[in-house]
Amino acid sequence: MEAIFMNIAMIDDKIIPADELEPVHLDRGTFFGDGVYEVLRSYNGKIFAFEEHLQRFANSLAAIEINGVNIDQVRQRVQKAFEAAGIVNAQIYFHITRGSAPRKHNWDDSLKPNFFLTITELPDDSAVKIKGILVSTHPDWRWKRCDIKSLNLLANILARQDAAKKGCDEAILVDENGLITEGAGSAFFAISGKTLQTTPLTCNILPSVTRRFVLKAGENLCLEIAEKPLTPLQAANADELFIGVTTKDVVSVVKFDGRVIGSGMPGRYTKLLIEEFRRFTR
Amino acid sequence: MEAIFMNIAMIDDKIIPADELEPVHLDRGTFFGDGVYEVLRSYNGKIFAFEEHLQRFANSLAAIEINGVNIDQVRQRVQKAFEAAGIVNAQIYFHITRGSAPRKHNWDDSLKPNFFLTITELPDDSAVKIKGILVSTHPDWRWKRCDIKSLNLLANILARQDAAKKGCDEAILVDENGLITEGAGSAFFAISGKTLQTTPLTCNILPSVTRRFVLKAGENLCLEIAEKPLTPLQAANADELFIGVTTKDVVSVVKFDGRVIGSGMPGRYTKLLIEEFRRFTR
Repeated sequence: MEAIFMNIAMIDDKIIPADELEPVHLDRGTFFGDGVYEVLRSYNGKIFAFEEHLQRFANSLAAIEINGVNIDQVRQRVQKAFEAAGIVNAQIYFHITRGSAPRKHNWDDSLKPNFFLTITELPDDSAVKIKGILVSTHPDWRWKRCDIKSLNLLANILARQDAAKKGCDEAILVDENGLITEGAGSAFFAISGKTLQTTPLTCNILPSVTRRFVLKAGENLCLEIAEKPLTPLQAANADELFIGVTTKDVVSVVKFDGRVIGSGMPGRYTKLLIEEFRRFTR
Repeated sequence: MEAIFMNIAMIDDKIIPADELEPVHLDRGTFFGDGVYEVLRSYNGKIFAFEEHLQRFANSLAAIEINGVNIDQVRQRVQKAFEAAGIVNAQIYFHITRGSAPRKHNWDDSLKPNFFLTITELPDDSAVKIKGILVSTHPDWRWKRCDIKSLNLLANILARQDAAKKGCDEAILVDENGLITEGAGSAFFAISGKTLQTTPLTCNILPSVTRRFVLKAGENLCLEIAEKPLTPLQAANADELFIGVTTKDVVSVVKFDGRVIGSGMPGRYTKLLIEEFRRFTR
């Protein structure tokens, strides 16, 4: 006589046969963080740096071998959703995971990737731009492929929560060698004299789209660009600090680990960079 | 006149209002890998090392500050599901994520954690035990808190897939210093002479429950225990190699990066450890 058994699943307190699970419950995005994402924004009804973000997304997909995603289809979906939302200053988040399957480490190339997107209205951030933000440092616990914009973000959110507990808006991550890599959700920049300094692009940081435009803005302002990592002490002693992030572009940092930067107000070059960046977004 | 806009979501090709998303679509487990998990197994109708796994699970929850989970309730849910499944040799997987909310890095302590569990029948692994498995090395790309059993497993699955491509069953991870940490989904052990060697417990490896029982089994067999990391060269030259993993306990490694270990068959002490481990599971 055959044993009576069945594969089952349980969601909170509810037991169901495993074969009644929806694909969304078997998403490899949840089991392994097996997916990649992008965040875009629009300025006055126009998506900013759309192609740059799509290119990075394609790179992330390739890096984790999610093959068979058609980037034209992604572009069309984002465009369609953006038009449907009708939000002029919108934040667009989307991710693709490798697909849904009963949990096992290895994957099968026949999996159908899952696409998920949200579009939300961005709040007016002009007050933040005027006041600047506070940041605190946190050890960089992330993995060794931070160049991939993946769903493995536990190190990022733990750092950000630690910053929030300290009354700060962003965590600045510091690696084992005592060097700043980047923010938990942003690129990080210092200005001293006429030099604009930021971490060079390696596997340890995200190839930030905002970073690229910030450096271009810096060149337009005749700043000297130094792509080399800063220590926290160097950052605390800089004339000006700021972060770069898609949703808010350039945001001045006025306190670093409790230390007031400059006059405690957004610095001269930071304000010029904000202006210069604004020209790109028109 | 107010602008016409709405927050929207898109799942594959379907656009829906954002407020119609189910909580499962807003799981922080998917957005950030913001959750922790456990894998247990039963032998002949009895869950092995249940309390040890629950204790580790509690540690993982605490480490990422998912507070307010009642471990007694987790124990009861697992027990209830296990009884409902009625599978004597079962694999039990469960995870808890921080909860569901519109995506933002910071969390709110009021979030209700999501519990998810599956129980599946384990295949008979006696053939594997007799033959042994093949392993290959891969750089350890994981984050700096591998002591937390989190859902951030992209580095693990990429390494495992690389091993599979090479015809191997497991990837053995090698850190920046050229030292073996552990397997992508297992603990790793070497025997040379009468010494049983494995990586010491630090933030770089998972505090494996199987590892603990393997070391106990080793002591029972009067093996000398050396908790220090191996290089790949040392591993390739060992008398015997094996992995330890909850679902299969002790499995002999007969090839390491293409190099035959010992006679190419499970070694003498590995077989004794398998026997010794079996006694724990009765």
